[in-house]
Amino acid sequence: MKNQTYRMTMLFDFYGELLTERQKEFFDLYYNEDLSLAEIAENAGISRQGVRDVIVRAEAAMQEIEDKTGIIRRFESQRPHLDAIEAAAAEAKTINYRRYDDPRLTELADLICAEVSSLKD
Amino acid sequence: MKNQTYRMTMLFDFYGELLTERQKEFFDLYYNEDLSLAEIAENAGISRQGVRDVIVRAEAAMQEIEDKTGIIRRFESQRPHLDAIEAAAAEAKTINYRRYDDPRLTELADLICAEVSSLKD
Repeated sequence: MKNQTYRMTMLFDFYGELLTERQKEFFDLYYNEDLSLAEIAENAGISRQGVRDVIVRAEAAMQEIEDKTGIIRRFESQRPHLDAIEAAAAEAKTINYRRYDDPRLTELADLICAEVSSLKD
Repeated sequence: MKNQTYRMTMLFDFYGELLTERQKEFFDLYYNEDLSLAEIAENAGISRQGVRDVIVRAEAAMQEIEDKTGIIRRFESQRPHLDAIEAAAAEAKTINYRRYDDPRLTELADLICAEVSSLKD
């Protein structure tokens, strides 16, 4: 399951609070804390398969919400627009640096890049 | 209920697909198509109070998801960053227009504003 960690982390980031406490705990230990199924099972005093079932159900619940709402897809579709803004600001900064050396234009380009960074977080 | 139309439209836009078919239908007719409870009731062959109950439950279900996940809040928190990018690009465009008249700088500022617009949609 761990080869899907990026997708799982995104699902958990958006929809984790909709899970049960137990689903949330196991999911977090497995994907974010990187414990093995066996380690989680030992700590929780249940079988490895039991832990696995909880995690698989949590994943299915979150994936179903995403399939219906497309919210993560919507967030991710912003990325190319943010990249384009960043590239344009970088190019403007370079042009200004080479031709005009206007300090306010440099500031504005930097400000745009900083705002894009905060939006990408 | 209609004084909350903006909030309801946002909830429906993000979480509408998680409602039942009936909730979705009544909610859409009431908030998006602007029918009255009585009109929806007559079309559906149920009581006005019945329609109201369906809509109130739909709203509560979506609000609960938002209270847990904060996804709409997260989307809305992007707005000031997008406004700042737009303002910076507009100022850069003005500076360029007044001092340098560099056509590529104008293009880049316009491109940034267009990307911001598409992100605000």
